[in-house]
Amino acid sequence: MSFRDQVDRTLAALAVTPGWRQLQQRRPDCDDETVAEILRQAGGFAERVLAPLNAPGDRQGAQLLEGRVQTPAGFREAFRSYGKAGWLAVDLAEAGDGQGLPLTVQAACGPLFERACVALMMVAGSTRAAAHLIWEAGDEQLIREWVPKLATGERTATICISEADAGSDVGRLRTKAERVGDDWRISGRKTWISFGDHDLTERIGHCLLARTGSEPGTKGLSLFLVPNLIEGQPNGITVERLEDKMGLHASPTCTLNFDQSRGTLIGSEGRGLAQLFRMIELMRLQTACQGLGLASASVDVAEQYAKERRQGGSSSSPPVPIAEHPDVRRQLEEMRRRTEVLRLAVLELATAMDLAAYEPDDEMRRELESFCAWMLPLIKNFGADAGFSVANAAIQVLGGAGYTRDWPLEQYLRDARVMTIYEGTTGMQALDFLTRRLWRDDGNGLRQLKVRLQADLSSGVDLYPEEAKVAEGRLNAFDDFSQRMMSLQAEPERALYLAHDYFLAGWETVSAWMDLRLCRIEDRIRR
Amino acid sequence: MSFRDQVDRTLAALAVTPGWRQLQQRRPDCDDETVAEILRQAGGFAERVLAPLNAPGDRQGAQLLEGRVQTPAGFREAFRSYGKAGWLAVDLAEAGDGQGLPLTVQAACGPLFERACVALMMVAGSTRAAAHLIWEAGDEQLIREWVPKLATGERTATICISEADAGSDVGRLRTKAERVGDDWRISGRKTWISFGDHDLTERIGHCLLARTGSEPGTKGLSLFLVPNLIEGQPNGITVERLEDKMGLHASPTCTLNFDQSRGTLIGSEGRGLAQLFRMIELMRLQTACQGLGLASASVDVAEQYAKERRQGGSSSSPPVPIAEHPDVRRQLEEMRRRTEVLRLAVLELATAMDLAAYEPDDEMRRELESFCAWMLPLIKNFGADAGFSVANAAIQVLGGAGYTRDWPLEQYLRDARVMTIYEGTTGMQALDFLTRRLWRDDGNGLRQLKVRLQADLSSGVDLYPEEAKVAEGRLNAFDDFSQRMMSLQAEPERALYLAHDYFLAGWETVSAWMDLRLCRIEDRIRR
Repeated sequence: MSFRDQVDRTLAALAVTPGWRQLQQRRPDCDDETVAEILRQAGGFAERVLAPLNAPGDRQGAQLLEGRVQTPAGFREAFRSYGKAGWLAVDLAEAGDGQGLPLTVQAACGPLFERACVALMMVAGSTRAAAHLIWEAGDEQLIREWVPKLATGERTATICISEADAGSDVGRLRTKAERVGDDWRISGRKTWISFGDHDLTERIGHCLLARTGSEPGTKGLSLFLVPNLIEGQPNGITVERLEDKMGLHASPTCTLNFDQSRGTLIGSEGRGLAQLFRMIELMRLQTACQGLGLASASVDVAEQYAKERRQGGSSSSPPVPIAEHPDVRRQLEEMRRRTEVLRLAVLELATAMDLAAYEPDDEMRRELESFCAWMLPLIKNFGADAGFSVANAAIQVLGGAGYTRDWPLEQYLRDARVMTIYEGTTGMQALDFLTRRLWRDDGNGLRQLKVRLQADLSSGVDLYPEEAKVAEGRLNAFDDFSQRMMSLQAEPERALYLAHDYFLAGWETVSAWMDLRLCRIEDRIRR
Repeated sequence: MSFRDQVDRTLAALAVTPGWRQLQQRRPDCDDETVAEILRQAGGFAERVLAPLNAPGDRQGAQLLEGRVQTPAGFREAFRSYGKAGWLAVDLAEAGDGQGLPLTVQAACGPLFERACVALMMVAGSTRAAAHLIWEAGDEQLIREWVPKLATGERTATICISEADAGSDVGRLRTKAERVGDDWRISGRKTWISFGDHDLTERIGHCLLARTGSEPGTKGLSLFLVPNLIEGQPNGITVERLEDKMGLHASPTCTLNFDQSRGTLIGSEGRGLAQLFRMIELMRLQTACQGLGLASASVDVAEQYAKERRQGGSSSSPPVPIAEHPDVRRQLEEMRRRTEVLRLAVLELATAMDLAAYEPDDEMRRELESFCAWMLPLIKNFGADAGFSVANAAIQVLGGAGYTRDWPLEQYLRDARVMTIYEGTTGMQALDFLTRRLWRDDGNGLRQLKVRLQADLSSGVDLYPEEAKVAEGRLNAFDDFSQRMMSLQAEPERALYLAHDYFLAGWETVSAWMDLRLCRIEDRIRR
């Protein structure tokens, strides 16, 4: 039920993730005890500082007052202490004022924070991702000026891509950047900017895609850092609108107008989208952590309720806890399995991303990268989906009570609903999974999946024959499906119509694989 | 898109429903033209009077002020004109001031009203169902005093079953009724009472289950009509609480305390739950109509948006409507199919219920009744589920826009979420489907399904071989599953664990059957 329990589940999941042991060999400072202590600190912070803000933040919401966004009570203080405690920069280089820990440690802590207050984590996510982006692609001056301040939460950052007529279709964006001397001037209107304005910190840096060249599509796009203030003066940015959303009320979603705003080029002209992908990648992984946070919170509420709520049984005896009814038991088992499978999948991806970064051998690194790129759309989408689905299933366990605001589940459901939409919709992820991961990468990611899944199969087939059989069956069916999709490259219309089914089959395969790994944890607990 | 389009779809669905032709033979007054005109009137009323209240009603919500419930602006006038126009009593006997039309006509009109303003229809549903209940089980005086006033909306009625410790477990309710002379005095607390208080009409009649005998469980329960006022004086009923819900904000959900409230026995002592089932049956069918109303509204919004919203395509040409993207097309097709299959299934059940009522032959009537009882849990649950799922899928088509309150979809989703909970949760419906419909009825409902599905198969196999093959496959698989479940009667724990899967398989079979029927409509449109 508690954050402590989540920490224990995360540690148990790390222990059965082969990549984690490999990573620990490269990073002996990340011994079990140290990581357990970091996770306990994260759980404590989440429970003590963040969780109390979640329901009041939803009720109060962010508001637009005289052109500025006001966040709910307590958000400013919580964000500042989150930053000061180092949680924004767990995996940022120490030279950039980060903790220098592996991404895996960040991904292990993330769901604890997301579970506590996903709305506030929206600004933490883009700030952290921007710090990584600038660290990797910015010039020395930009790094010096921005990275340490983002790392400690003295400043925040946004990601500005969408425009009214350029949502999933990024190549049509029209915001323009023009060079004026050493500087750039940006003009245009950006939509759907999370924490595009707020009162958490004084300065905000917008990581913004704008058109610099005359080339159509994504090729003419460059990436800029556009601060809200320059030397204390406004930089021509106005908040035109706050979206009135179904959920995530405490996370202000802004339409921003940029009028000759000064910006600094990040990296090189025309490489904007490619560079921004570093930020997008981290935010997609975060989305999965959000889904995991909400799923884990939801299943905990449902389990606890089902233990305490008594209904049914023989009318001559006292009623029994509903958890004892077979159908409720089934519901709880499905929710728990879905949650824990996601936890294992997130760690599988995060460890592979870390190992790829550490890998000196070019070919081995490329293999790892193929696998990560293959997993990312799955993890992003089905992580997001699990948050929504498990919250939904939990409401069902509580019945009418779950439909009321007396319980947090209806907020979890509302907050989770957007997660299969932002950071790339389900449709875009499925498209990426088919056209880039299978077709363009010529099946490399799939081959890596097979190698990895087979390793778990060969060590698990004797211990968990039933689950191994399911996983093997799924893998074979998915392999067949992949061959069919490969052969459909000449018929893109038909292939794209099937892209979602193919995407889903990919996740079912990963789920069956992780289910096999889950047996090891349950086995461990039973012993 | 419009209500007019919904009317046309409903007429087309009636035309391919075999039971409707049989019913028209018994009811020659229900010729095509007359029914079309009734549906057009219903659609017009829904569009003109009800639909404008839906979003404002959600924003304003029902409120508890000084012990009384206030409904949103315009609800009172709309309800009164709904009643005056006769829509509450479409299928009530003419002698009771109803229209005397078949239930099928009511079920055809229902989704139009539900689509327009489901929250207001909550009070219409219980009022109408109570009129039927009293008409069938009440004594002459009760009928004279209540039925015409319920039929015209001068009074409303509720259904009071649940208590804090007796939700799905009705047998544990503790509200007591004691006889005092010719009268009864009722004391206890009832929860989850929709429109338990309001300002739409002066008088409210509570159809209330209370314990009269000393027998435990459901046997000691009797049914009462308990008015809020008697001769203008309060009858000891207080509103203790309004639930603060995720959706259906305009439908007040009350906790009512009854303190020595005077009530009239409906029917006979100890038969309360059995009698109330007439009301529950109608309200379960209504739930399916609610789901259909919200699903049809949602798919219409998504289809229209996808035609108008342009994104993607070659970057050197103007963007194309997103409806042309294969994955969006797939989403729209699935939503539309799901909605139209539900529409056909609702009409299949409603016509069978009508034919059962008209059937003079005992055995044939029992067969029809078995089929209806078999279909009802499926229609109730998967109708409710379709409302939620299609609203959810529609949000996905709209992307970020769908997550905002600029569009009605997020409200549809919130309103729909409770529908698989109230009027019997999914778990309770699955239990009913297995233990009563299969086991206790000894497979009679299933046999009727087979006869009916086979009839559609034999006439459809040449015309729609693909769909016929799917339907036949589903039927055979479901038949096998049924045999397995039959043999599990001695192992109830295991059987109940599988009840949900079995229930779902039943609906998949009905869906495939109705899909075959849907081909006839599409065929008709193509020609």
